[in-house]
Amino acid sequence: MTTIKVGVFGASGRVGKLLIEDLKNTQGMGLSSVYVRNSLDFAIDPSVLVTSDMHSFIGASDIIIDFSLPEACEALLEEAIKTPKPLVIGTTGLNTHQLNLLKQASELMPVLYATNMSLGVALLNKLVHQASAALEGFDIEIVEMHHRHKKDAPSGTALTLAESAANGRNLDLDKVRVSGRDGNIGERTKDEIAVMALRGGDIVGRHTVGFYNDGEFIELNHTATSRNTFSKGALRAGKWLSDKEPGLYSISDCLEL
Amino acid sequence: MTTIKVGVFGASGRVGKLLIEDLKNTQGMGLSSVYVRNSLDFAIDPSVLVTSDMHSFIGASDIIIDFSLPEACEALLEEAIKTPKPLVIGTTGLNTHQLNLLKQASELMPVLYATNMSLGVALLNKLVHQASAALEGFDIEIVEMHHRHKKDAPSGTALTLAESAANGRNLDLDKVRVSGRDGNIGERTKDEIAVMALRGGDIVGRHTVGFYNDGEFIELNHTATSRNTFSKGALRAGKWLSDKEPGLYSISDCLEL
Amino acid sequence: MTTIKVGVFGASGRVGKLLIEDLKNTQGMGLSSVYVRNSLDFAIDPSVLVTSDMHSFIGASDIIIDFSLPEACEALLEEAIKTPKPLVIGTTGLNTHQLNLLKQASELMPVLYATNMSLGVALLNKLVHQASAALEGFDIEIVEMHHRHKKDAPSGTALTLAESAANGRNLDLDKVRVSGRDGNIGERTKDEIAVMALRGGDIVGRHTVGFYNDGEFIELNHTATSRNTFSKGALRAGKWLSDKEPGLYSISDCLEL
Amino acid sequence: MTTIKVGVFGASGRVGKLLIEDLKNTQGMGLSSVYVRNSLDFAIDPSVLVTSDMHSFIGASDIIIDFSLPEACEALLEEAIKTPKPLVIGTTGLNTHQLNLLKQASELMPVLYATNMSLGVALLNKLVHQASAALEGFDIEIVEMHHRHKKDAPSGTALTLAESAANGRNLDLDKVRVSGRDGNIGERTKDEIAVMALRGGDIVGRHTVGFYNDGEFIELNHTATSRNTFSKGALRAGKWLSDKEPGLYSISDCLEL
Repeated sequence: MTTIKVGVFGASGRVGKLLIEDLKNTQGMGLSSVYVRNSLDFAIDPSVLVTSDMHSFIGASDIIIDFSLPEACEALLEEAIKTPKPLVIGTTGLNTHQLNLLKQASELMPVLYATNMSLGVALLNKLVHQASAALEGFDIEIVEMHHRHKKDAPSGTALTLAESAANGRNLDLDKVRVSGRDGNIGERTKDEIAVMALRGGDIVGRHTVGFYNDGEFIELNHTATSRNTFSKGALRAGKWLSDKEPGLYSISDCLEL
Repeated sequence: MTTIKVGVFGASGRVGKLLIEDLKNTQGMGLSSVYVRNSLDFAIDPSVLVTSDMHSFIGASDIIIDFSLPEACEALLEEAIKTPKPLVIGTTGLNTHQLNLLKQASELMPVLYATNMSLGVALLNKLVHQASAALEGFDIEIVEMHHRHKKDAPSGTALTLAESAANGRNLDLDKVRVSGRDGNIGERTKDEIAVMALRGGDIVGRHTVGFYNDGEFIELNHTATSRNTFSKGALRAGKWLSDKEPGLYSISDCLEL
Repeated sequence: MTTIKVGVFGASGRVGKLLIEDLKNTQGMGLSSVYVRNSLDFAIDPSVLVTSDMHSFIGASDIIIDFSLPEACEALLEEAIKTPKPLVIGTTGLNTHQLNLLKQASELMPVLYATNMSLGVALLNKLVHQASAALEGFDIEIVEMHHRHKKDAPSGTALTLAESAANGRNLDLDKVRVSGRDGNIGERTKDEIAVMALRGGDIVGRHTVGFYNDGEFIELNHTATSRNTFSKGALRAGKWLSDKEPGLYSISDCLEL
Repeated sequence: MTTIKVGVFGASGRVGKLLIEDLKNTQGMGLSSVYVRNSLDFAIDPSVLVTSDMHSFIGASDIIIDFSLPEACEALLEEAIKTPKPLVIGTTGLNTHQLNLLKQASELMPVLYATNMSLGVALLNKLVHQASAALEGFDIEIVEMHHRHKKDAPSGTALTLAESAANGRNLDLDKVRVSGRDGNIGERTKDEIAVMALRGGDIVGRHTVGFYNDGEFIELNHTATSRNTFSKGALRAGKWLSDKEPGLYSISDCLEL
């Protein structure tokens, strides 16, 4: 088996550093090149190409993984359009122009774009959709928990899970979502989907989607134990993407369910 | 060891029938008498006194356990004041006069009065109070779940648990209770206590009180698996009460923590 | 929409009684006939055909649901081979001859055969298989809990879930299953699958399959809250089966994932 | 309120660094002195005394917190015997001589010694002991989970929790502990206490002690979300210890239940 040569774009960022670290222990993949504007503030194996020349950077890799900033990502996309390579894009905050560039690139090369590279969350969304459709008549309740500093509720991930559940039954989430219960509210309605937000301590992220019926219930839970899941998800995505046709893919495509 | 002779008052009710059944398998206790207005619609051991004479009923027992209706309970209390016996009272809905009668009786005999005889819930309240006091700075969040037909939220048990938690920190529950979270609500405040209500399926009752801090959290859970816990709690309460001094006791007293 | 006419075979049994009860609240299905050897010990709507003639019983129904005993089921299969109807068979303990008869019947009519009609457990098996395949490198651990009287461990359901997990990775469960851990056992091996059995109280059945990786984990749980799930599963299976081609089906086929 | 002046011994160690960090956000306590053999590899506020002179170090503090190595701890104890100060000792691996020195010191000053400074685990042990005693007849089952690299099972914390549970009922843990279940093992015995060990991913530490009866169960859980709980526990212990009489204390003493 040949080793897939990986180019890391955004190597000085938090995820970039994790990628370089995780690549040391990833079978079938190895770090081949790193793009840097200036110099790196950490040591790197001398066999790796460290360059500020975008063309050389791309040329030295089989696939590119990008966790950078919107403008840097834009420059990467422009260069990739000239010399196509499979691209895993994890940069957040892209504007309309940059998203259009991304779509344009995906006609020439396989591009996987995801703002949450967690494999587990992607899988949970798939499972929730299936369970919602299969378990007709089961009541759906979602509970998420995050650390005490989180300012919005419910979490984006919880809302996405609720969408997956609602889609499984052709429900409009806006019409059935409940975010609290207090007082003489009467019996639960058939279609309502509660999305309850707990806050406390330093919980990274915990989501449970439950399906309840007379006699039995199912609870599907995802828990993040550190903020470092994106690197592993991106590497797995890159391995999967390396032999795909041009097109725009999401993290759930590479679950191949 | 002598066997404690138990008189069951309200023998035709749901809990009354359970008491008679559970007494068959309870060490150190045995059914001695049953009070009935008319006749029983089920078979009972011939050694047991079945009577509609209150005086004989009380006389044949070491302790009395009552799960009946307010008026019947009132008649029992009036008779017991004449011939005192340890009383376990589980009848709900007593009015002021009946409650006063109960207090009056408790000056002459030990009386344990509880509208929820679940041993586990009583214990959980104690543990929550301790944890709340000991775990200064930990965020408190409570989640309860009940079946889809429950009309009010949160459950009385959840509110009692929240009171236990608030008391442990000298907080006023009314000022710190939260029953839902939605939107850009900002960071969690130090003192708030969320009491979130889930509804679905045929869940009898599930309560979790969590204490969350940086680096660790504790979750204390009680789950009811059937509606039949009151009988067992009452029998345990009766055994405990049988050698006590006159006074008014609660279910948590007999936990002897 | 026409209502599917359901014939209940084994109406005096525990599940049979539940079927008759649940049919009152099931949209699109209605009780049409009941087979009895003698008479029923409970009241039934006069519009329902109550008969001890197998031919009339089958003739009056669109589908037949059977929860009876092996010999009675055998007689049913023999008659159904003469006048084919969709059959849901939940009778356990069939011998080789009876199973062969069942296969023979399934060439002439759709037959769904399942010894566990729980919809939730069937779904969980599907989800576990997918998760196991998708979450390469995640450690798999299974915990089951049952009441204190259960004599064998682990439960049949837990072993089936473990099979689903092992199949998702082409592992041989016999080689990788672990049922306890004690002492200086060294680091966890990559492929091992623990199936741990807890026992206590009156727990009907609780199964959790966990997938653990650096940074995140997923836990999929099924909990039975009563022993009455088979009736609902069978009705759903019957509705699904009513328009199928002849063949032998399982409960998971009707999940249509 | 006066601020308690804290001296940190072992400031270059992992917990020592956390102590210095956490003291910045601790009400009523402040860092006053740091003992260093050589120099610190990190910046510190100029108002703090940084010294390699043990006598000055102790003199500048109201209480001392020590997370160092056995020999360094020994030197600290010898000096403290000359100039007593409340001591929180978290150093592990002390030999018999050093432990004797520690006891000797505790006759002259309050000394709190704990190899696990987690407040939550200490509390859980207390709660488990109480629940075990109060919930007579409930079956006890313990499940612990740790990361895939842990080599021994069950964890020391799980065994301590099992001891707390056994003590609550005057049971000998060695005679009742079960670490796995497989095959036709028969019904659960009344007194057995299962301690099941799960392994997987990067779980820091999760312990659940369950008490199961007919009709209800209680589950008490502690989860560590990072390895950084010892610093917070030590600071709390120090605050509590600052006004105590000479004596040898444990972390659970400062819970003041």
